Amino acid sequence: MQDTMTIDAERLWEQLEELAQITDPAAPWTRRAFTERYLEGRTWLRHKLHEAGMSTRLDEAGNLIGTLPGSEPSLAPLATGSHIDTVPSGGRYDGILGVLAGLEAVRSLQEAGIRLRHSLEVIDFLSEEPSEYGVSCIGSRGMVGKLSPAMLDFQEPGGERLFDAIRRMGGVPEALSEPLRKPGALAAFIELHIEQGRVLESQRVPIGVVSDIVGIHRYDIVVSGQADHAGTTPMDLRRDALAEASGLIKTIQQAARRQAEGNAYLVATVGRLTVSPNASNAIPERVEMVLEVRSNDAALLEGFFPPLLESAQRQSAETGVSIEATPLSEGLPTQCANDVQAQITAAADSLGLEHMAMPSGAGHDAVYMASLAPTGMLFVPCLDGRSHCPEESITPQQAADGCRVLTETLRRLDSL
Amino acid sequence: MQDTMTIDAERLWEQLEELAQITDPAAPWTRRAFTERYLEGRTWLRHKLHEAGMSTRLDEAGNLIGTLPGSEPSLAPLATGSHIDTVPSGGRYDGILGVLAGLEAVRSLQEAGIRLRHSLEVIDFLSEEPSEYGVSCIGSRGMVGKLSPAMLDFQEPGGERLFDAIRRMGGVPEALSEPLRKPGALAAFIELHIEQGRVLESQRVPIGVVSDIVGIHRYDIVVSGQADHAGTTPMDLRRDALAEASGLIKTIQQAARRQAEGNAYLVATVGRLTVSPNASNAIPERVEMVLEVRSNDAALLEGFFPPLLESAQRQSAETGVSIEATPLSEGLPTQCANDVQAQITAAADSLGLEHMAMPSGAGHDAVYMASLAPTGMLFVPCLDGRSHCPEESITPQQAADGCRVLTETLRRLDSL
Repeated sequence: MQDTMTIDAERLWEQLEELAQITDPAAPWTRRAFTERYLEGRTWLRHKLHEAGMSTRLDEAGNLIGTLPGSEPSLAPLATGSHIDTVPSGGRYDGILGVLAGLEAVRSLQEAGIRLRHSLEVIDFLSEEPSEYGVSCIGSRGMVGKLSPAMLDFQEPGGERLFDAIRRMGGVPEALSEPLRKPGALAAFIELHIEQGRVLESQRVPIGVVSDIVGIHRYDIVVSGQADHAGTTPMDLRRDALAEASGLIKTIQQAARRQAEGNAYLVATVGRLTVSPNASNAIPERVEMVLEVRSNDAALLEGFFPPLLESAQRQSAETGVSIEATPLSEGLPTQCANDVQAQITAAADSLGLEHMAMPSGAGHDAVYMASLAPTGMLFVPCLDGRSHCPEESITPQQAADGCRVLTETLRRLDSL
Repeated sequence: MQDTMTIDAERLWEQLEELAQITDPAAPWTRRAFTERYLEGRTWLRHKLHEAGMSTRLDEAGNLIGTLPGSEPSLAPLATGSHIDTVPSGGRYDGILGVLAGLEAVRSLQEAGIRLRHSLEVIDFLSEEPSEYGVSCIGSRGMVGKLSPAMLDFQEPGGERLFDAIRRMGGVPEALSEPLRKPGALAAFIELHIEQGRVLESQRVPIGVVSDIVGIHRYDIVVSGQADHAGTTPMDLRRDALAEASGLIKTIQQAARRQAEGNAYLVATVGRLTVSPNASNAIPERVEMVLEVRSNDAALLEGFFPPLLESAQRQSAETGVSIEATPLSEGLPTQCANDVQAQITAAADSLGLEHMAMPSGAGHDAVYMASLAPTGMLFVPCLDGRSHCPEESITPQQAADGCRVLTETLRRLDSL
């Protein structure tokens, strides 16, 4: 293995800036999947992949895949990548860093005259972010056969089915009833991403080696009381859905804080809540809210909410308020492959970059790719941990460090 | 005073049903002030007032006033009434019972050949319910000079100013800079209304003699934190606006419950709350909510929230969350005139109807009329305390009992 190779940090930064500029000008930075703007981004990317000497194709799930042929065609390819779609008014680096660092790795390898044994794929997964169709990670789910017929039938508010939207993006939704690729079809998958949190920044460590990706349990919670007049209903005759919901939210926060004092990672959030009738002079009749629990420990994840719910149901029943919870999703934690973690660690060491093991609190395409290939992730810090907002920010140095470790890791995986 | 007179319970009920039918057919029961439907209701009412032998006029605040001349023109008139507007999808009896019971009183007096010494006014106040212009009790405020220039400048979402809306209803908004009537202009005002609560029903008492009308303090509360990623932000790094707001809501409920164990009436409600960004995977950055505190005890009313706020501000500051509260309105309790209460009580006694003293937890036009004349209110029960909803319901017997006591009270006030 050749020891001296560099990446072009300036070129990587220019490419990041260039793709970020392909945004809805009214709401930077917005490049929503399934839009014309998104297709413009993909056209740009396809051109860059070709420039770097890769062939490109769209798979049946609408993923854009660039391939650099390896010297030993019998080997399963190595793959890296992420996504180029954004949330509305999101950031400039979430997703595209992983795709463009893959592109830069290919260019650098080409320029250094290094030919890998394995073919190398750079994948832009379709619609990783939560979409108008109610499902995220559409491309990576589709690649591994986890887009169910029910999901394909989901409609965006305008009435278009996801099935038809995938076709509109160039996919072949009819083919998604089974995995597009089977375990063994890739030698490894590795994704570089911004951390989207404050851990690396607060520890002043440039590289996070992801140990596992949290599982996410989401619950739809409905609290039902009675919409009485806020003036004429004495306190002891009330069935106030918001007051009961508030008690539950506070309990959830306190319980999650207690868990977090231990070693395992667990966070719990009620981020979405609506009240009806939502009038200042009416006692709230109904509160709908979504609880999200995330942990890298499956037992903690599954055991966190049920006892809190049961206790809240018992207490609220005394005031005539009912609480019902429906699981919306029950994803389990994903363990990153030890071999891939070890190569990321070795790569960072060889480049003299400090690193730390950490869980990923956010979901990523890597979650689905892990069912297909040994999978790993590496993080770089982002300013104040902000993400999914226009203030999301990284430095050219941070981007370059991530790209260097990614490239070095791919070389090491290639030589195994 | 003649002892034998009856009201026509069946006619009263028919009139209630007839006016209730003048509703937006798509959302019964809806007769919003300032609409064509409302004007249709007023045309119907004006016709009925004429039929009963009254002259009618619109005053400058847009109140419709029917007058039955008394035998002693030098005496200030007695007045009764309420309103015929409704909330959207409201009930059939809120407001119109007080107007149509006044009408029935006049008819009964006429048919019994009883001529009062005082003239008797039946008033349909303009727009008692919260309106699209952001202000309630528009007609009664206007009559007593409490519609400020700022209020008259309020616009509904379509851009029409309240000033222009009052003119459209036949009022003369230019004249509202001072009271239309001065203290002494009326001998007394009495309003019959449904209770809009469950107290009379649960006590099985047909008549409530209102002792005072609660004052209402409303506060706009803004809780500000930071919208971090719900997966990647450990519990101890969060600034969660909803979790802090929830703690405050629970504290308010518990404090109000403790107050309510004493003798004074106090209720506190957070009925309106919005979260932003309101996404399941984002920690809430901002919660806006409205707190309404109502009490018939001015000291309790004013002293309730400030210490709770201060304590919540101290606690939430520890987690980097700020809580700001702005008073939206600070109405004081209104004492009903002892003389009028005594006559209502005597009237109920003379009719053999059980009665109880009680505060009104809801605001009414009587609040404003109390600054103009000795004012009283009486309540009749309504089913399950429901009001401001299509399920609002009373029986013909309950309506008739209220009308009987109202009529008898007017006769007694007339003879003082």
